[in-house]
Amino acid sequence: MTLQLGVIGTGAIGRDHIHRITNKLSGAKIVAVTDVNSEQAHAVVKAENINAKVYKTGHDVINASDVDAILVTSWGPSHEEFVLASIAAGKPVFCEKPLATTAAACKRIVDAEIAHGKQLVQVGFMRRYDQGYRALKKVIDNGQIGEALMVHCAHRNPSVDSTYTGDMALTDSFVHEIDVLRWLLNDDYISAQVILPRRTRLADKNLQDPHFVLLETKQGIRIDAEIFVTCKYGYDIQCQVVGETGTANLPEPLSVLMRSEAKLSTEILTDWKKRFLSSYDSELQEWIDSTIKGEMHGPSAWDGYFASVTADACVAAKHSGNIIPITMPERPAFYARK
Amino acid sequence: MTLQLGVIGTGAIGRDHIHRITNKLSGAKIVAVTDVNSEQAHAVVKAENINAKVYKTGHDVINASDVDAILVTSWGPSHEEFVLASIAAGKPVFCEKPLATTAAACKRIVDAEIAHGKQLVQVGFMRRYDQGYRALKKVIDNGQIGEALMVHCAHRNPSVDSTYTGDMALTDSFVHEIDVLRWLLNDDYISAQVILPRRTRLADKNLQDPHFVLLETKQGIRIDAEIFVTCKYGYDIQCQVVGETGTANLPEPLSVLMRSEAKLSTEILTDWKKRFLSSYDSELQEWIDSTIKGEMHGPSAWDGYFASVTADACVAAKHSGNIIPITMPERPAFYARK
Amino acid sequence: MTLQLGVIGTGAIGRDHIHRITNKLSGAKIVAVTDVNSEQAHAVVKAENINAKVYKTGHDVINASDVDAILVTSWGPSHEEFVLASIAAGKPVFCEKPLATTAAACKRIVDAEIAHGKQLVQVGFMRRYDQGYRALKKVIDNGQIGEALMVHCAHRNPSVDSTYTGDMALTDSFVHEIDVLRWLLNDDYISAQVILPRRTRLADKNLQDPHFVLLETKQGIRIDAEIFVTCKYGYDIQCQVVGETGTANLPEPLSVLMRSEAKLSTEILTDWKKRFLSSYDSELQEWIDSTIKGEMHGPSAWDGYFASVTADACVAAKHSGNIIPITMPERPAFYARK
Amino acid sequence: MTLQLGVIGTGAIGRDHIHRITNKLSGAKIVAVTDVNSEQAHAVVKAENINAKVYKTGHDVINASDVDAILVTSWGPSHEEFVLASIAAGKPVFCEKPLATTAAACKRIVDAEIAHGKQLVQVGFMRRYDQGYRALKKVIDNGQIGEALMVHCAHRNPSVDSTYTGDMALTDSFVHEIDVLRWLLNDDYISAQVILPRRTRLADKNLQDPHFVLLETKQGIRIDAEIFVTCKYGYDIQCQVVGETGTANLPEPLSVLMRSEAKLSTEILTDWKKRFLSSYDSELQEWIDSTIKGEMHGPSAWDGYFASVTADACVAAKHSGNIIPITMPERPAFYARK
Ligand SMILES: NC(=O)c1ccc[n+]([C@@H]2O[C@H](COP(=O)([O-])OP(=O)(O)OC[C@H]3O[C@@H](n4cnc5c(N)ncnc54)[C@H](O)[C@@H]3O)[C@@H](O)[C@H]2O)c1
Ligand SMILES: NC(=O)c1ccc[n+]([C@@H]2O[C@H](COP(=O)([O-])OP(=O)(O)OC[C@H]3O[C@@H](n4cnc5c(N)ncnc54)[C@H](O)[C@@H]3O)[C@@H](O)[C@H]2O)c1
Ligand SMILES: NC(=O)c1ccc[n+]([C@@H]2O[C@H](COP(=O)([O-])OP(=O)(O)OC[C@H]3O[C@@H](n4cnc5c(N)ncnc54)[C@H](O)[C@@H]3O)[C@@H](O)[C@H]2O)c1
Ligand SMILES: NC(=O)c1ccc[n+]([C@@H]2O[C@H](COP(=O)([O-])OP(=O)(O)OC[C@H]3O[C@@H](n4cnc5c(N)ncnc54)[C@H](O)[C@@H]3O)[C@@H](O)[C@H]2O)c1
Repeated sequence: MTLQLGVIGTGAIGRDHIHRITNKLSGAKIVAVTDVNSEQAHAVVKAENINAKVYKTGHDVINASDVDAILVTSWGPSHEEFVLASIAAGKPVFCEKPLATTAAACKRIVDAEIAHGKQLVQVGFMRRYDQGYRALKKVIDNGQIGEALMVHCAHRNPSVDSTYTGDMALTDSFVHEIDVLRWLLNDDYISAQVILPRRTRLADKNLQDPHFVLLETKQGIRIDAEIFVTCKYGYDIQCQVVGETGTANLPEPLSVLMRSEAKLSTEILTDWKKRFLSSYDSELQEWIDSTIKGEMHGPSAWDGYFASVTADACVAAKHSGNIIPITMPERPAFYARK
Repeated sequence: MTLQLGVIGTGAIGRDHIHRITNKLSGAKIVAVTDVNSEQAHAVVKAENINAKVYKTGHDVINASDVDAILVTSWGPSHEEFVLASIAAGKPVFCEKPLATTAAACKRIVDAEIAHGKQLVQVGFMRRYDQGYRALKKVIDNGQIGEALMVHCAHRNPSVDSTYTGDMALTDSFVHEIDVLRWLLNDDYISAQVILPRRTRLADKNLQDPHFVLLETKQGIRIDAEIFVTCKYGYDIQCQVVGETGTANLPEPLSVLMRSEAKLSTEILTDWKKRFLSSYDSELQEWIDSTIKGEMHGPSAWDGYFASVTADACVAAKHSGNIIPITMPERPAFYARK
Repeated sequence: MTLQLGVIGTGAIGRDHIHRITNKLSGAKIVAVTDVNSEQAHAVVKAENINAKVYKTGHDVINASDVDAILVTSWGPSHEEFVLASIAAGKPVFCEKPLATTAAACKRIVDAEIAHGKQLVQVGFMRRYDQGYRALKKVIDNGQIGEALMVHCAHRNPSVDSTYTGDMALTDSFVHEIDVLRWLLNDDYISAQVILPRRTRLADKNLQDPHFVLLETKQGIRIDAEIFVTCKYGYDIQCQVVGETGTANLPEPLSVLMRSEAKLSTEILTDWKKRFLSSYDSELQEWIDSTIKGEMHGPSAWDGYFASVTADACVAAKHSGNIIPITMPERPAFYARK
Repeated sequence: MTLQLGVIGTGAIGRDHIHRITNKLSGAKIVAVTDVNSEQAHAVVKAENINAKVYKTGHDVINASDVDAILVTSWGPSHEEFVLASIAAGKPVFCEKPLATTAAACKRIVDAEIAHGKQLVQVGFMRRYDQGYRALKKVIDNGQIGEALMVHCAHRNPSVDSTYTGDMALTDSFVHEIDVLRWLLNDDYISAQVILPRRTRLADKNLQDPHFVLLETKQGIRIDAEIFVTCKYGYDIQCQVVGETGTANLPEPLSVLMRSEAKLSTEILTDWKKRFLSSYDSELQEWIDSTIKGEMHGPSAWDGYFASVTADACVAAKHSGNIIPITMPERPAFYARK
């Protein structure tokens, strides 16, 4: 069986996903697309050389009779609408992060999905599909370092553009750690604190940079994370889990070890797009595979909701200087950990 | 367009290739299979849940009208026959290494392909598709270490089974280095010397282990390679290219860095099958893509022939203790480097 | 000129220092020793084969006419007394850490030294003499990573014995970071916070382990440090400084890189005594050299005082759960940074 | 007891040794010096602020009644004369490498020392005192990698000056490997082969660079070594021992790990003088200590002789292109391995 997909939003990541599904992955094909910029939708269909119909709206895509499942890759503010509509149509939907732009909207999606009675929604937190994070999780799950006690992280970008403002370090960058660490630790958060270290002079003067975030989990695990988006030297994601008998680090991306110009070195990526390239492939291949089987294994609507509530707590912690509790309803059995 | 494939030989690697083409790759499907053990062919079709017809012989597969291209994954001695038949049928053929079991047989394939007038044959030297070797080649091609002068290699297996005998270290293990280094350096070999170091007491007592091989290229580059198939500690492929201004190493496979039990460590693989897993994916995906376009970019029949002649020279060098010249006809324009 | 030294306390470290001064270092010799356990003092003189007189008390050593300078290596509670007596006698004194066991006692030493009018006191914070920390400081001072913004540390011991209780993680272990980081950053602390992560089940059940400490400096640099004294795997001191353009890590101790048993590994020390062995040599050699020249360059009484006040603040932060300000008098010109 | 030393040759290394003995080491002092350039001898005495008499000739130094032992740090061609005279005077002598400039001269020293009846000569092969090589030897001696089978080495300099010509790569650079590997492996050499790889265009056009040397030991261990003295990127000494169950590498010198400018890197030294700095300290401290005890543990005259014969064989192998046997008399019991 070939899964027939409709794509809402043919911008940067929409097109990337269309390309990989068509040329690298197995089991699915794009039969419908749309974009508010319909010219662009047509252009992508042509450039990618796919046999897909261009619809006027996301709702048309969702309701097209040959569309088995939906990819939402439009701007964040439109996600809630299309995810709810997909649920209403009873069709599986892969929604790029964020699930929605407010915790309340995420909650509405969770409620709708529970009401529907079957999980249909997957959120695009691709780090769970990264080979490195998976290897790290295996080490922890195997008990190779005992129980996890602390996690030390860094999320560094060489620089950001002028659209990166306000609390995006927390809501756009750190949100990836928020999701992946809950999954890595099989745990949930109960409080957040944000410390503002000495500012770098190299960031835009309206931007606080770096941030230092502390999260506490239900089990008492303490996570500290540096988010430093003007670090200049590269795009660098680090994660060290400290357990009772050892520590384990997220692997560095594969790189040629060189001896040159008085340095023994490996390259650090500078373009974030390259860092998780193959994670996107695995994420979508596994989504296709499980969708065909009528299953859902990836980051759920609940995970999208938890991420949203946690990011909000971080923002509140930052602005108040206080330790902010993270309060979520009890995890519904519907979203039980597998 | 979907490329329709016929597979000859549904043993270990045949089945692996069927699985990846069906479940992970894009653009091809298996429509025909065969194996001298026809029961096994049927079993694979069933287990992999594919819609493929089981034929009696490889020739039936090659000649089936719905078969666009062939995968030869039967035992080495049968390769020549099926590759020649594919050429005769004018169909693209991917043949697992070795191209054939003698240099003379390889030469017959080369001659047949030239006579046919268009490249149809690709040999399964998958290391050229390894992310690590590709990154290494890029460093060299970019001039980041100047001109290559020397290459230091190691090819180590934890152990081998009792079918691994005689000169297989040269003809079965080292042959991968033979191919990948010619490609890496854009160069050809002119002589070989084989040194027999002190034997490990941990190898089967009839097996010489390790070997130390020296190759000389046309440009004067000197390659040294340790082949050590009872090294106990892991499956470990190392390659350092020394250039005029620096050195570059084949990347280590991605691994979790651990601090545990008084060691700072990363894991070394022990199962060779895991080392080049994703190379097989890329190898076949790229073969499918280029075959659909009517092109041929991978290791050619000429490369298979060169590997065979070089391995023979290594064997002669080992048994004589001498430096043995490697003599090949001039590279035909037909196989010009691209 | 040979510096003639008197040693007060011939326990573990006292004897180590006697041995290194006698057999490895240049420019000094031991002429006087004492210990409350006088038998042991005699035994050490004999075992180390030195020509030193055994005195009854530390004061006798300090006042001996052939003693140019003093080494105080007795138990902490006796340090104040002997350091003050050395100052009174106008003799240079090297005092093992801690300078004294309370901040008030440290302050009395500082006051006495200022009153004396010339620096005489050096405290045994040997990490400043570690090759690794020195290399790290050079990188920072050279501006190779821009201005320092954050420091991430870990101080891990495999295990501690039953005498290690209460807040010793802060006052005995972390105190080394307290001193060395002020020196490394050329900065002072203004607040401390202590977080208690999930406890390891492998520590004595009366011991909180690990601790996670946050320090803030005058310049706004944020330091986070994990102190984990039952980490099982080894004695491991880590320090990463994050600057505006890069990060720099304390070097790992020199170790043989091994490939063995499916691991690529280097050894981690388990015995803390081995970690800073050569730092003790440099510390004392440089102290001898500068003392001969009538100079004083090492950790001063002021540094000992600052360390004491900071450790106290950490203890208060731990027990209150609050962020505790670190308040010190203005640095006197007498102790100006050089 | 303080060992009273006479130094013959106050050039670069002579002065270095005078400085370290006077200011860093314990147990010896310089009481006599000489140099054919007597002005320079006087200048060094003054600059180093030592109380040493300047003699007219090396023989005057050797025969001075207050001189207990001799350091020969003059040019190579004068070594034989002064070492023989020291033996004649019955005084211990530390002679910088080479012991003498021909194998025949080395043999004369060996014969004289045997005739004298007690070992007096130590040769300045300081690598045996390097912390890294010592750690590596410990791993081998502990059986951590089983029996050694192969050794892969590299000896790289960024560049050499115009006085570096002819076969100095073998006689001046590689000679350090020749000595240290015999010691590391507790083995002797029986043959040498030298391969001339593709030349770098960055070396002086009269200089063959790099060389690739193969040595065979009595036990059948095979050593390969690249000597590349215009490698541009740094002074880099590498050594990997391959044993039956694992491999062990000479540790890299301690260095700050940096993340900067899209690179994860450690520094590689460029100045060879810095690479073995602390080895010189240990070498001389241990020589002083053992000399005081009337013992001799370091590289012996026999080792100097073996190095000379091996270097000669390498030169012959280079010029002939052949595998050259290394023939030495039986090791006399006088020089038995301890
Ligand atoms: N998982 C990740 O690492 C990752 C990376 C990049 C982007 N994203 C997410 O993917 C989404 C898209 O990001 P992008 O970088 O592709 O942005 P983009 O601006 O390049 O593309 C978004 C596209 O959506 C279209 N669009 C917007 N509203 C629409 C609507 N109502 N109906 C139809 N089309 C609509 C726009 O015209 C545009 O073409 C965002 O939510 C972003 O956060 C996730
Ligand atoms: N590129 C690599 O790394 C790699 C790895 C493994 C194997 N190989 C190559 O792949 C080939 C197969 O290896 P394998 O490990 O799968 O062996 P295998 O024995 O598991 O499978 C070979 C199969 O071919 C069948 N066969 C043999 N002769 C046949 C014929 N004339 N017609 C039809 N079927 C025939 C056998 O019955 C068997 O099922 C070999 O040439 C081997 O060298 C390459
Ligand atoms: N810098 C470091 O890393 C480091 C390491 C170890 C110890 N130290 C410090 O060194 C000091 C000694 O530690 P140790 O491990 O050698 O302890 P120890 O118990 O082995 O030795 C202390 C000795 O001092 C003697 N002593 C005690 N009070 C005395 C007094 N009033 N007069 C004379 N002698 C007296 C004791 O009898 C004992 O022999 C402590 O302050 C400790 O914190 C520092
Ligand atoms: N072990 C090592 O790594 C190492 C390093 C450098 C030098 N060396 C060896 O040390 C020796 C000296 O090297 P250098 O770099 O100091 O050279 P240098 O030229 O700087 O010094 C040699 C000195 O010896 C003096 N001299 C020469 N002949 C003399 C004689 N007959 N009597 C008295 N003085 C005499 C010269 O005037 C000169 O001052 C050489 O044999 C060299 O190979 C060893």
